[in-house]
Amino acid sequence: QVRGAPAIALLGCLSLAVELAGGAGPSDDLGALEEFVGQKLGFLLSARPTAANLGREAERLRTFVRQQVETPGVTSQQLRESIIEYIEGLLEKDRRDNRNIGAHGASDILGRVPGGGPVTLLTHCNTGTLATAGYGTALGVVRALHQRGSLSRVFCTETRPYNQGSRLSALELRHDGVPVTIIADSAAAAAMRERGVQAVVVGADRVAANGDVANKIGTFQLAVAARHMGIPFYVAAPSSTCDPTLASGRLIPIEERPGTELTQLGGVLLADPDVDVWNPAFDVTPHELITGGIITEWGVFAPSEVCRAL
Amino acid sequence: QVRGAPAIALLGCLSLAVELAGGAGPSDDLGALEEFVGQKLGFLLSARPTAANLGREAERLRTFVRQQVETPGVTSQQLRESIIEYIEGLLEKDRRDNRNIGAHGASDILGRVPGGGPVTLLTHCNTGTLATAGYGTALGVVRALHQRGSLSRVFCTETRPYNQGSRLSALELRHDGVPVTIIADSAAAAAMRERGVQAVVVGADRVAANGDVANKIGTFQLAVAARHMGIPFYVAAPSSTCDPTLASGRLIPIEERPGTELTQLGGVLLADPDVDVWNPAFDVTPHELITGGIITEWGVFAPSEVCRAL
Repeated sequence: QVRGAPAIALLGCLSLAVELAGGAGPSDDLGALEEFVGQKLGFLLSARPTAANLGREAERLRTFVRQQVETPGVTSQQLRESIIEYIEGLLEKDRRDNRNIGAHGASDILGRVPGGGPVTLLTHCNTGTLATAGYGTALGVVRALHQRGSLSRVFCTETRPYNQGSRLSALELRHDGVPVTIIADSAAAAAMRERGVQAVVVGADRVAANGDVANKIGTFQLAVAARHMGIPFYVAAPSSTCDPTLASGRLIPIEERPGTELTQLGGVLLADPDVDVWNPAFDVTPHELITGGIITEWGVFAPSEVCRAL
Repeated sequence: QVRGAPAIALLGCLSLAVELAGGAGPSDDLGALEEFVGQKLGFLLSARPTAANLGREAERLRTFVRQQVETPGVTSQQLRESIIEYIEGLLEKDRRDNRNIGAHGASDILGRVPGGGPVTLLTHCNTGTLATAGYGTALGVVRALHQRGSLSRVFCTETRPYNQGSRLSALELRHDGVPVTIIADSAAAAAMRERGVQAVVVGADRVAANGDVANKIGTFQLAVAARHMGIPFYVAAPSSTCDPTLASGRLIPIEERPGTELTQLGGVLLADPDVDVWNPAFDVTPHELITGGIITEWGVFAPSEVCRAL
C-alpha cells in the first residue's frame, strides 16, 4: 500500500513505532525489547529487495537502540519511548533533507544553465510528496526551482507499467501550480531534442559505492539519451539511499515483477494473457552517465565520490 | 480503422478500386476519370501527414493513369479496369517486397553476428501482417530469421500510447510460433544490456533523401540506446517509404495526437484529465544512428545512399 523508497523506509519504521506505542513486545526486559525491534526490522527488510533506504534506516535504528540499551539506568519503558521518539523524528528529518536536496539541486542546475534559467527539466517516475515524507527528492529540486521562479516547465514521463509519472507526479505538481507536461516514456529523447529540456533529474532506490544508481526501469535509457543530447543527468537522493557495502551497481538485486502489470489494467486485458513478459522494476545506471551529479542533503557530489564523501 | 504506413497506402488505393469497381466517377470521358482518380487520391493523402507510402503509391498510380490515358485507342472502361487491376497488383507486390525485405535483412544481420546466429532481436511498434499486406517489414525480417532457425527471441516494446507492440506484434508472432517477449518501452536499453539483444530492427513511415527516418515515437530513443550499446540498428522499409523530395528528416511533418491517448484507456481515466500532454505520434532518427542500414526489397543500403540507390 506504499511506494517510493523513502516513503517505504519511513512507513516501515513508523509501523514499528505504532506497534511499540500500542504496547507490542516485551515490557520488562531491555535485551528482549531490543531483540523484538530487530526481528520486526528484519521482517520489514524482506519486503522489497532493491531500495536501500529502509535497510539504512533500520541499521541506524539498531545502532540507536544499542546505545540506549547501554545507557546506565535506562528502563524498558524509557527505551520504548525513546525508539518511538526517534522514529517520529525521521519524518521531520526526511522533509528537512528533501528541502536541502531541492536547494542544492536547484543551485547546481542554475549554475550550469546559460543565463541562469529559467530551466526546462525532465523527470521520471514519482519522487515527490507521494514518495517521501513531503516535498520530494527529484521533485524537491523541481519545487525549489519553481519557488525561485526559475522553472519553465517539467516533463514527466508516464513511467510504465505503473504510470507513477502520469498518475502521481503530474497530479501533485499541478496541485502546487507547477507547469507540467506528461509524455510517453518513448518520447523522452524527442522531448530533449524538440522541447528544450536542459537537465534530467531522477530519484534513486540505491546508490552503490562506485556511484552506480538503481532506480525505476527506464532510468538507464534516459541517462543514455541525456548523454547523447549533451544534457546533464542528475540523481537526487537522501544519503540513506547510499549503500557503501556494494562495490558496484551490478551487485544490486533487481526486483522483477509480474507480467500482468504490462498485460492487464484493472483486470482489463491489454495483451495476449499468455505472452512472455520481462518486467524488471528497476535498472542500474552506470556512474559515468550521471553527468550532473548526485544531489544529497549535504550537497551535490560526483557519483564516484558520493559514498566516500557522505 | 487501419494503421501501419504500408497498410494505410494499400487500403487507401484499394478503397479507390472498390469505388471504381462499383461504378463511381465519370463513365465516358478519359480526362474526367483521370481527374476523378486524382481528386480521390488527394483526399486520401490528407488523412495522415507523416507516412510517405500512400503519397508514393498515389504518385505512381497517377503516372500509370497518365500513361494509360495517352495510350491510343484506350476506352474509359478499359482505363477503369486497368486501374483496378493495377491496384490489386499492389497487394501481391507488397507481400513479395516484404519477403525480399525479410530475406535481405536476415542475411545482413546473420553476416554481422559472431558465429552467424541464432540472434536475439528487439523491435518497436507493429510492422507485421497487421501493418502490411502480409509478412511484414521489420517483422518480416524477424519471420525470415525464425524460418531459417536463426532467431533466439525477439523483444517487442509495448509501444505506448497505443500498445501496438504488446497488442499486435506479440499476438501475431505468437500465432506464428515465434519466441517473443513483451517489455515496457523503458526497458529497451536494459534488455539490450541484460538480455543479449544483438540487433534492433524497426519500420519506417518516411525516409528523407539523406536517410533520416520518421517512425513511431520512441524510435530515436532506441537508436540512441543501440548506439550506446554498440548494437546495429536497422530500419526495414519498402522503397515506397522513401521521399527523395525532402532533403532531411527535419522537414518531415510530425503528427501530434490527442493527449487523451495517454490519459485515458477505453474511457477509463489514467491521469488527471486536465493535465498538459505532448503526444507526438512519430519522431525522426538521424541517419548516422541507423548503423545497420536501411533494408528494402532491393537490398540493404547505407542510410545516406538509400534514396539515390533506389
